[in-house]
Amino acid sequence: MSAGPAIILVRPQLSENIGTTARAMLNCGLSDLRLVGPREEWLSDRAIAAASGADRVLMAARCFDDTASAVADLNRVWATTGRDRYMVKPVDTPREAAAAMRTVIAEGGTCGVLFGPERTGLENDDVTIADTVMTVPLNPDYCSLNLAQAVLLISYEWYQCAAPATLPAMTKGADDCGPVAKEKLLTFFAHLERELDECGFLRVADKRPGMIRNIRNIFQRAHLTGQEIQTLHGVVHELATYRRKKGEAQG
Amino acid sequence: MSAGPAIILVRPQLSENIGTTARAMLNCGLSDLRLVGPREEWLSDRAIAAASGADRVLMAARCFDDTASAVADLNRVWATTGRDRYMVKPVDTPREAAAAMRTVIAEGGTCGVLFGPERTGLENDDVTIADTVMTVPLNPDYCSLNLAQAVLLISYEWYQCAAPATLPAMTKGADDCGPVAKEKLLTFFAHLERELDECGFLRVADKRPGMIRNIRNIFQRAHLTGQEIQTLHGVVHELATYRRKKGEAQG
Repeated sequence: MSAGPAIILVRPQLSENIGTTARAMLNCGLSDLRLVGPREEWLSDRAIAAASGADRVLMAARCFDDTASAVADLNRVWATTGRDRYMVKPVDTPREAAAAMRTVIAEGGTCGVLFGPERTGLENDDVTIADTVMTVPLNPDYCSLNLAQAVLLISYEWYQCAAPATLPAMTKGADDCGPVAKEKLLTFFAHLERELDECGFLRVADKRPGMIRNIRNIFQRAHLTGQEIQTLHGVVHELATYRRKKGEAQG
Repeated sequence: MSAGPAIILVRPQLSENIGTTARAMLNCGLSDLRLVGPREEWLSDRAIAAASGADRVLMAARCFDDTASAVADLNRVWATTGRDRYMVKPVDTPREAAAAMRTVIAEGGTCGVLFGPERTGLENDDVTIADTVMTVPLNPDYCSLNLAQAVLLISYEWYQCAAPATLPAMTKGADDCGPVAKEKLLTFFAHLERELDECGFLRVADKRPGMIRNIRNIFQRAHLTGQEIQTLHGVVHELATYRRKKGEAQG
């Protein structure tokens, strides 16, 4: 597990929320969970069930008597708050904080984020221990994250700030998914346009060039694979052939 | 409430998760909640308690019989998936999708995000209805978001992405180039598939569902305009009709 910020829950009330916090953390590659004076036993069955497979984070959690001890080894600490504390302190969004954490860690330092009790949030004395306040920008008319959701958003920003662009631009089918050489596409266009000429769809000479361009653009935008071009050849061929046969049979 | 994407829960299993989804949405200023075939009553006491004050979103939720009806009025749809579906479809991170949604909405369009049932995720047929797949980049060794957490992360990115991207996603043709409502695309699919059934292209029952998905994905990727859909109706109709006439004439 790569080094990331410690997640520090100050006086959490419900063990279930400690479990869901562990789950949120591990989703984003974090594993350093610290608890200050938890009210309930955090290895309860409910906490382990709530961790949903992330119990290795729960098992490794460390417990401290007070906030100062919990942050003693850290170089830089953020305090999450949802409301103004009337203190003169810098404020970061989670995205700004994530970038700053990356810098601290890249320079060999350590950092952590403080979260207060579910009902009341951090006390001012805990906020004072932090370098910086962190507030999640949310709907000012309804701002009600639970503890694990707040941990998730902040952990998520940390992970995104690190994650190289891991997603490919497109999901792949099972086979034959490389970008196709244009030659195959042009062969399909020729087939389609031959059939459209024959059936009379392109019969108005003035409009023919524009219509062909429009149809070609539709299929260009789809970034077709070789297999898909084969499918489209089949569609055009069968629509035509069957009609011909049917016509003959009727005639 | 400003216009934002619709959040569409497909066959959600637990009413409590519908409540926590409403809460996650309202935190990020979203209010258009749509349910496709929910297993439980979504105005249950448990759902309302889980919504934690966001019950106005829950009360205004609309219920649909199938996914196609739920997206019929939308111009652009994302399908959330955690695993590869072996379809050829573009993939966005939530951040990329948020920027694209802002552009769609700034141009007067509407959009939505599909979420599958808790246990199984979206079925392939539901993914096929979407333009684009959305996957949250997370720890590859432990990736276990619950439904409301996935909704939260995606809604959060939408909220953070305050400004629309300045460049439109695509150069425009002369007329009727807004993104088209899904209903028109689904009507075209029905027309095309009816003709393909009749001509025998889809005669192998085992292969039919996969072939239909592949063909739908081709046209989803093209982001068709209303005019282009009309053109494609014409292509399919004339390929079919003329053959019939020609056959008759020959016969």
